[in-house]
Amino acid sequence: MPLKPKIPSPQPQSRRVGYAIVGLGKLSAEEIIPAARTSEHAYVAALVTGEEEKGEGFARAFDLTEDDVYSYEDFEKLQGREDVEAVYIVLPNSMHREYTERAAKMGKHVLCEKPLATNAEDAKAMVVACKKAGVLLMTAYRCQYTPEHWAARDAVQSGKLGAVKLLDSIHAQVEDDPTAWRLKAEYAGGGPLPDVGIYSLNIVRFVLAQEPEWVFAALHQPKKDARFKEVEESVSFMLGFPDGVIANCQTSYGAQKTTTLRVMGEEGSVLMDPAFPYQGLKLTIKTKEGSLTPSFPAYDQFGLELDHFAECIRSGKQPWTMGEEGVQDHVIMDAIYESARTGQVVKLSGSRKKDPFRGEQKPKLPTA
Amino acid sequence: MPLKPKIPSPQPQSRRVGYAIVGLGKLSAEEIIPAARTSEHAYVAALVTGEEEKGEGFARAFDLTEDDVYSYEDFEKLQGREDVEAVYIVLPNSMHREYTERAAKMGKHVLCEKPLATNAEDAKAMVVACKKAGVLLMTAYRCQYTPEHWAARDAVQSGKLGAVKLLDSIHAQVEDDPTAWRLKAEYAGGGPLPDVGIYSLNIVRFVLAQEPEWVFAALHQPKKDARFKEVEESVSFMLGFPDGVIANCQTSYGAQKTTTLRVMGEEGSVLMDPAFPYQGLKLTIKTKEGSLTPSFPAYDQFGLELDHFAECIRSGKQPWTMGEEGVQDHVIMDAIYESARTGQVVKLSGSRKKDPFRGEQKPKLPTA
Amino acid sequence: MPLKPKIPSPQPQSRRVGYAIVGLGKLSAEEIIPAARTSEHAYVAALVTGEEEKGEGFARAFDLTEDDVYSYEDFEKLQGREDVEAVYIVLPNSMHREYTERAAKMGKHVLCEKPLATNAEDAKAMVVACKKAGVLLMTAYRCQYTPEHWAARDAVQSGKLGAVKLLDSIHAQVEDDPTAWRLKAEYAGGGPLPDVGIYSLNIVRFVLAQEPEWVFAALHQPKKDARFKEVEESVSFMLGFPDGVIANCQTSYGAQKTTTLRVMGEEGSVLMDPAFPYQGLKLTIKTKEGSLTPSFPAYDQFGLELDHFAECIRSGKQPWTMGEEGVQDHVIMDAIYESARTGQVVKLSGSRKKDPFRGEQKPKLPTA
Amino acid sequence: MPLKPKIPSPQPQSRRVGYAIVGLGKLSAEEIIPAARTSEHAYVAALVTGEEEKGEGFARAFDLTEDDVYSYEDFEKLQGREDVEAVYIVLPNSMHREYTERAAKMGKHVLCEKPLATNAEDAKAMVVACKKAGVLLMTAYRCQYTPEHWAARDAVQSGKLGAVKLLDSIHAQVEDDPTAWRLKAEYAGGGPLPDVGIYSLNIVRFVLAQEPEWVFAALHQPKKDARFKEVEESVSFMLGFPDGVIANCQTSYGAQKTTTLRVMGEEGSVLMDPAFPYQGLKLTIKTKEGSLTPSFPAYDQFGLELDHFAECIRSGKQPWTMGEEGVQDHVIMDAIYESARTGQVVKLSGSRKKDPFRGEQKPKLPTA
Repeated sequence: MPLKPKIPSPQPQSRRVGYAIVGLGKLSAEEIIPAARTSEHAYVAALVTGEEEKGEGFARAFDLTEDDVYSYEDFEKLQGREDVEAVYIVLPNSMHREYTERAAKMGKHVLCEKPLATNAEDAKAMVVACKKAGVLLMTAYRCQYTPEHWAARDAVQSGKLGAVKLLDSIHAQVEDDPTAWRLKAEYAGGGPLPDVGIYSLNIVRFVLAQEPEWVFAALHQPKKDARFKEVEESVSFMLGFPDGVIANCQTSYGAQKTTTLRVMGEEGSVLMDPAFPYQGLKLTIKTKEGSLTPSFPAYDQFGLELDHFAECIRSGKQPWTMGEEGVQDHVIMDAIYESARTGQVVKLSGSRKKDPFRGEQKPKLPTA
Repeated sequence: MPLKPKIPSPQPQSRRVGYAIVGLGKLSAEEIIPAARTSEHAYVAALVTGEEEKGEGFARAFDLTEDDVYSYEDFEKLQGREDVEAVYIVLPNSMHREYTERAAKMGKHVLCEKPLATNAEDAKAMVVACKKAGVLLMTAYRCQYTPEHWAARDAVQSGKLGAVKLLDSIHAQVEDDPTAWRLKAEYAGGGPLPDVGIYSLNIVRFVLAQEPEWVFAALHQPKKDARFKEVEESVSFMLGFPDGVIANCQTSYGAQKTTTLRVMGEEGSVLMDPAFPYQGLKLTIKTKEGSLTPSFPAYDQFGLELDHFAECIRSGKQPWTMGEEGVQDHVIMDAIYESARTGQVVKLSGSRKKDPFRGEQKPKLPTA
Repeated sequence: MPLKPKIPSPQPQSRRVGYAIVGLGKLSAEEIIPAARTSEHAYVAALVTGEEEKGEGFARAFDLTEDDVYSYEDFEKLQGREDVEAVYIVLPNSMHREYTERAAKMGKHVLCEKPLATNAEDAKAMVVACKKAGVLLMTAYRCQYTPEHWAARDAVQSGKLGAVKLLDSIHAQVEDDPTAWRLKAEYAGGGPLPDVGIYSLNIVRFVLAQEPEWVFAALHQPKKDARFKEVEESVSFMLGFPDGVIANCQTSYGAQKTTTLRVMGEEGSVLMDPAFPYQGLKLTIKTKEGSLTPSFPAYDQFGLELDHFAECIRSGKQPWTMGEEGVQDHVIMDAIYESARTGQVVKLSGSRKKDPFRGEQKPKLPTA
Repeated sequence: MPLKPKIPSPQPQSRRVGYAIVGLGKLSAEEIIPAARTSEHAYVAALVTGEEEKGEGFARAFDLTEDDVYSYEDFEKLQGREDVEAVYIVLPNSMHREYTERAAKMGKHVLCEKPLATNAEDAKAMVVACKKAGVLLMTAYRCQYTPEHWAARDAVQSGKLGAVKLLDSIHAQVEDDPTAWRLKAEYAGGGPLPDVGIYSLNIVRFVLAQEPEWVFAALHQPKKDARFKEVEESVSFMLGFPDGVIANCQTSYGAQKTTTLRVMGEEGSVLMDPAFPYQGLKLTIKTKEGSLTPSFPAYDQFGLELDHFAECIRSGKQPWTMGEEGVQDHVIMDAIYESARTGQVVKLSGSRKKDPFRGEQKPKLPTA
């Protein structure tokens, strides 16, 4: 699906939600800012970066002026920018809390990259801060906004697969830069688990619409490897859901890119492989009739997120992946690390309620 | 790959090894006996069954006489049959030990269907009995004889994938006959684990050529379901191998047919899907160069097994999947059930030796 | 899908149709005779062969006696065999006419391997002979009996693909034995065209349910190659159907096994790849909703043919692929060779009628 | 492969080749201009359009000023723009000749979209004009610049497939806007053939490195359909190459998107499906060892073209797909239309020389 930026929409920006993009790394540059150009309800109104020159280059390239570029120190100057209604935080995990709290104080709505923080405590504090300030907080779980992941969830929820028995998900990739912040415990809060393993955790919960009751995990951290002095290389974890449903998950920074999701039921199964890239998701739904790979219109995952949150800002409704959804993954990840440390099963609160941590505004799926 | 029986070979049977097939269920009828017709070194010389009429029908169909059909009571009459050098035991698991011991006493070599027994203790007794009697014992692990599984193992062992980090394997299928002996603890020794989950366990050990050091498992047994009064419906288990390598496995009698094996390494990966059917195995080896699905000549898995054991009988060498290999899976399955019962990790002896439980005669792979 | 012969059915043979298999080559030995064991309505009652010893081996293997084996000279002795109601002719193409006429004279129904003869004239004579004798004649087009090919046809005929515009089909394989009768013009009537290209021709007509109005063809015959002294190596042909629909087809004895069918419509498409093997057909139906690979129960193509013709014998109805269907392919193949020889388009009679050359008894598709 | 524009390169533009993009339709907006941002050796220096406002929007969006936007009338003002060394003509086919000649007169090098013109005569005139003016002319055949198409060609040229016997290629899509210029004979020079069928024609010639000796074609033009009053809906054509190699091709504006290439040889085959999209090409090379899908680094097809021509401008060498390559496709397409009109085979000059119409500068393939 070719999805390159369209030319700027001629519609008045005044009706769209202006975002300040906070942090100008690869994700912002290659995915988020280009995606904003495909958005119906959102646009990039400002950039916040520690590298002024880079910011100005971006500004010129994306139809902004130098006045739209802010340093981290000047972050609070955004308060005067009425056209900036939301910030999109794309910073190292450990900075999410601080910038969320600073944004909330200015009355800006916060879209925050996953993981929401580096642990459940910080994540909860972010939710509290946004509630107090009366702003919305959304965790940027792009895979809860694609038609493929929704079709997988619908196959499960509709009963088309019969009772679900087992799930299996893998998200692995090679991280080979020993200096990457993603390998520093202080900045990242963990290794592959909060970075890529979180996709498996999050999507397993999403397709089941339920919460795990217990977790068991084991990890491998080869400390002699310069990359893994502070964080794990791999984690394998098992999640126990209500009714004896079990999900096996694996994540690693030491194995070639693999992203899968498999849901096995009495009467059918779902396979996504690849399950988590920005583009090219492949979904197969197997039932007694055969194997179906549904077709969907082209879309941009980041564009869908930006639009969803913009619509929430207009409607005042809680986003589908609200802050609490991000907190819950931290609660479980904290338990995963605890289990790996103790070698024991860790109990979780579970829940019989459907989607207990998700908001009221359901995502709009792309239409042709 | 069409693989129907060839016409009977004109070579003198005297040079081939005559087998008595013990038990005439679906597997014997549809796979093993037809496979014998494709064999170079083996042929079916006698049938042992509790249903005389059925046995005679088979005998007529497969070029034997009524005199080649024996009841279980007459099993010992095979002793006088010099042309019967081996028995192939295709009975319910709980009968494996008895018939192995009776065959050994007669000096017949024993090829025994997997699982070797219903627990490690019985399996060990079978090894002892055969040793004592000076006959060979082979566990019929057909997946250790296919070119696809060997290519997967070779990809791992050659280093082509870099260091292996994680493995994942699933073997599930729906068992819907509540009266099946496979659902009776006494006959089967367990539910899907010793029947189909054993493939995942066995093949993960085979491709790594190593032994697990610990296991954690959880199972689900919905006793209200008439099928699962005695045995589990599903088991999820995690195997810890040397060097932090972890395998996640799942098996079930409650989910649609799924058979997979995935090996993830630093520089490549292996995917088999399907991984365990009698025909149509699909292997993909991914490295930086791309994805390769190797081609192999047509073959019959049961024919390969029959030939391998026949060659061992001629050479006197221990078969590749000798009795000890079958015992080891029982040791691990016993630990899996213990872990599921206690909720605790169970330690295993592990081993730094390569292929510690396999024989000296390597399988011959089929050639075009 | 493993499909090995089942054990002989305990039902009385008296209700089933007894076939004499005429010709004991690879196809008879590996496919047809084993398939008869899976049949509901048919069984093998006699064998006709030029190699007595081979025949007796077969007889023993397949539960017949030496008295059930006939030489070609003794063919007419089948007349006295009331249990032999039909013959299945599996001889070199050039012998089809003679044996059909001899069988018809004996009042035996005739199932004849494709191609029906070596040219349209002989094929027509066979139809006439069977009509005159009051016996049924069926061309053994196995691909008109599979659920996959019917699902492809249904996708076309139901309008699910919108108006069909183009078709494309390939059937190629390497024939490397220069002494094979398939490479002798006298025996085969041509090269790859009547042997494998006929599948493309036949299936394109089948899925459209229409007849071509013109044909253009080009062939390649490298006479320096010992294999192609008498027959072509490759043929490319274009078939013009009503309403401007065009099918491109290719066949070869010089290229690696390739068997495909593609039907392209305004709103969807059908792809079969592989399209023509005995097992493992893969069908994909693409519409705006996505790509569907339907599932079907296991079956044996030759078993389905044997059953269909047996049912026609019982019902007295014309088989779906009656003699006329085989004649029509010869009419078109004769035109293909003429076009290749002259370099000109050759007009055909065409037809606006649906399925003008097919019988009244539709095949029963396998059920689970 | 996500491939969104990178941020502008900080390298001095003075070393890169500045292009004027002539024509601002969908292809320029969504593919070419964004691709220029990924280019090492090229950048967009000016825009030429009939819609001033649209041009200024683009200019702002892509870091140009209003002064960089020219109307068609002002095209010659580019002469004074020394930084504009080349023009990229992305206009309706019938305007290619005029703008190429006008650009050549100004001494600007010309990269021209395919098809080069609307017939061979105009295409030849363009080659002459550029030669006379001493500027380079490149036909924008993006599929001769991808690693997948080169790997397909290499498989053929290396002999890895054995002698090639047959080829088959399809390029179809639905054109449903009856007002599109692509459906006007005057502007387009034909229907799907010069627009999408040309890919099949061009790539078949590319992988063989040879030229056809004859062509046969049939077309369908349902004039009652408002879309096909002037041009054909579908064309099927057969190309005869040296040594009896035949390619079957089909193209249509009336069938769902299909893009394939198949090359069948004695010892292997190549399949590309899809074969011609901007992204997501899938190549499979089958040999006796198995099926290989090679991996390649991410790239942008238009970026590769822009870079290749920029390098030719710097080196003075003829581009790989020089004007003559574009002329040759027109010669063949003229013959295809003649064959379809007359119902006769049309002879072509053919050539025993390898790549007789390609330039001396080979494309650089993307590296990781």
